[in-house]
Amino acid sequence: MRIVVPLFDRFTALDAVGPYEVLKFLPEAEIVFAAAKSGPVRDVPKSLALTADAAFDDIDSCDVLLVPGGPGTRGLLDDDGLLDWIRRMHGGSTWTTSVCTGSLLLGAAGLLVGLSATTHWGAVGVLESFGAIYTPERVVFQEKIVTAAGVSAGIDMALALAAHITDQTTAEAIQLAIEYDPQPPFDAGSPGKASQAAKDLIVGGGLRPPR
Amino acid sequence: MRIVVPLFDRFTALDAVGPYEVLKFLPEAEIVFAAAKSGPVRDVPKSLALTADAAFDDIDSCDVLLVPGGPGTRGLLDDDGLLDWIRRMHGGSTWTTSVCTGSLLLGAAGLLVGLSATTHWGAVGVLESFGAIYTPERVVFQEKIVTAAGVSAGIDMALALAAHITDQTTAEAIQLAIEYDPQPPFDAGSPGKASQAAKDLIVGGGLRPPR
Repeated sequence: MRIVVPLFDRFTALDAVGPYEVLKFLPEAEIVFAAAKSGPVRDVPKSLALTADAAFDDIDSCDVLLVPGGPGTRGLLDDDGLLDWIRRMHGGSTWTTSVCTGSLLLGAAGLLVGLSATTHWGAVGVLESFGAIYTPERVVFQEKIVTAAGVSAGIDMALALAAHITDQTTAEAIQLAIEYDPQPPFDAGSPGKASQAAKDLIVGGGLRPPR
Repeated sequence: MRIVVPLFDRFTALDAVGPYEVLKFLPEAEIVFAAAKSGPVRDVPKSLALTADAAFDDIDSCDVLLVPGGPGTRGLLDDDGLLDWIRRMHGGSTWTTSVCTGSLLLGAAGLLVGLSATTHWGAVGVLESFGAIYTPERVVFQEKIVTAAGVSAGIDMALALAAHITDQTTAEAIQLAIEYDPQPPFDAGSPGKASQAAKDLIVGGGLRPPR
């Protein structure tokens, strides 16, 4: 089972690595990080590079496509090379998935017209501009397309996907292996739960922005 | 504020990337991934490489040391070069932290004698062999040393640490930025919660092992 994760400049590392850490336990999983050309690809804020071991052109097909998000997505919404590649992968995939603003790339590729999908809470309008029906859930299954909300939601998505691909016991064993028994110290992880002060900090630019 | 993340062969990527994705939002954060020599470092199961931008010898000191875990830790418990470097970093740090079996490296470096600490649930005996007092909590603050339980616990640890370094509103804003409103599809993330079938799958080697 080949799982392909496309990387691009200014992606968000956890979008890719969260689900990777789950899916790597699947039987026969072969996970390939790919990019326009092989080699290191910098995230936001450029302090971290993940290696793309393959170029997009090297990959004919995959079983699972996992598209991460990040600020870099915004400059790729009219990148015909990438969007063609996404359409081609989707054409042969069993599952086409995204985390955070990775769904904007699926949308820009024309894959979400009339379909329910989710994205980071700050990108809802852009998602809807591609004809998707925004659904404020953490993980949205829509036929073979699975979209996750912002950044950390990719872990929840991957566990749900793992259960679909194998079975619930296997998915639970993976959850135990990565000790995913979340206990965030605060209850501020969605716009409906965060304090106004926390929201103001983001909206006002007071939180250190990714470079 | 310099945050240094040591990498080594067969580390677990989410141990490093989870907290990184939180701490990168801290004011003045400069995050450096380092290794015995600079360049790409392969995780388990070798499908992913993160780039170490610095060699250990290039780094004189740091404010926050963040030690990830992974199967590779077991071969490093008597690596004097790495353990000396950890002791040196700890000597000048404001916070010395670990995720998962990263705490075994802190223990092997002699930093946990008589102190409360945590680790991955599967590594408790090794942690205790270094004189640490195993504490079955997700995040353990012990003076300036902060240890987190397995893999995904690094996200919870980093949010708590972010609040200590800045303030609760900033930590909550970071939590909102990464939309950390966890909703795992199952409740199997700790040995006390997982089903016997899931535990049997891990213990019996039925879960695809990391290569």
